[in-house]
Amino acid sequence: ASTVVVGDELNFIPPLNFAMVDNGVFRSGFPHSANFSFLQTLNLRSIIYLCPEPYPEANTEFLKSNEIRLFQFGIEGYKEPFVDIPDDTIREALNVVLGTPLHFNCGQDVRNHPVLIHCNRGKVCEICSSALYMTKRFEFYNVVLSFQHRTGCVVGCLRKLQRWCLSSVFDEYQRFAAAKARVSDQRFMELFDVSSVPISFSCSNK
Amino acid sequence: ASTVVVGDELNFIPPLNFAMVDNGVFRSGFPHSANFSFLQTLNLRSIIYLCPEPYPEANTEFLKSNEIRLFQFGIEGYKEPFVDIPDDTIREALNVVLGTPLHFNCGQDVRNHPVLIHCNRGKVCEICSSALYMTKRFEFYNVVLSFQHRTGCVVGCLRKLQRWCLSSVFDEYQRFAAAKARVSDQRFMELFDVSSVPISFSCSNK
Repeated sequence: ASTVVVGDELNFIPPLNFAMVDNGVFRSGFPHSANFSFLQTLNLRSIIYLCPEPYPEANTEFLKSNEIRLFQFGIEGYKEPFVDIPDDTIREALNVVLGTPLHFNCGQDVRNHPVLIHCNRGKVCEICSSALYMTKRFEFYNVVLSFQHRTGCVVGCLRKLQRWCLSSVFDEYQRFAAAKARVSDQRFMELFDVSSVPISFSCSNK
Repeated sequence: ASTVVVGDELNFIPPLNFAMVDNGVFRSGFPHSANFSFLQTLNLRSIIYLCPEPYPEANTEFLKSNEIRLFQFGIEGYKEPFVDIPDDTIREALNVVLGTPLHFNCGQDVRNHPVLIHCNRGKVCEICSSALYMTKRFEFYNVVLSFQHRTGCVVGCLRKLQRWCLSSVFDEYQRFAAAKARVSDQRFMELFDVSSVPISFSCSNK
């Protein structure tokens, strides 16, 4: 009982809004170089990136040197009421998470886990976020930093595949969305047809 | 692609605020009988209950019939500024989560995973919570239902053991606490001495 961790340089900085979704499946805000040493502890095999913008060079380098495969699905951002969440693309992203027969058929390695799902939000540096914490402006912090809409939709659809009731799907969505929650996202999840993604998936111990 | 899940009776209802903390470690609000079929999918070996109140009979029955072991740590609730979070009890709870040499020494089975950590909050029936969702009174919902302080402290200390930086520990705490966040809880986590719990623990794939 004598080894004490001293100094922030020895500590891990998970990306903002980091959470474990299920065995081998994680979600987070956009990862920055400060988060790389933490991400290495996850032994990621793949990352699902849900934005059309090119992946930054530093992140691409990190992926290369850690043999992490990038699956990019360019879902455009939107502002309500101009809603156009592409059902097919969400389905494709889910296929990567689940490893469906689609991938078996084309001979790819379907063992994409551990996988991290993220999109573009949370692009505020750690120093700013720490400063917000220090000044206890939590409410502001929640509004500015806390949500990734596309990630929230993918995870919500995954929960439907896991047969979570809709109020629980929304409970989780709300927790990450906070003041940025959108009715259109929730409507999308409500209408998402689970029968079109044939594989079931559960939190149970594997 | 033709099996569609119809009707809520076929869906799982996770306890409020349910989340996966790490491999084999879950957190949630107080589980009710409506949540039991979901909990069965987790194949729990143990539950850590952080309140002094007796465990309800229905829950005890559920534990018995599913061979789930109950670890109860009677941490009293408090209202600021009367703060007395018992450091030792939090440490004992962490020992159950981690399976420390303490347990090896006394010959107990330390394989407590999968384990669910919960305390008393969230004691509002599913019908009420659904009604709140229907009426879109999300803010009220968050305030009334969303937090378990003692669970938040245990998970926060666990994150410190995982060497998460403090701002990330608070980020997660805040997400579950929403409007119910307490400075005293965060101060407790900040001061918690990780060197007194010797085992490290990580999100990495096992």
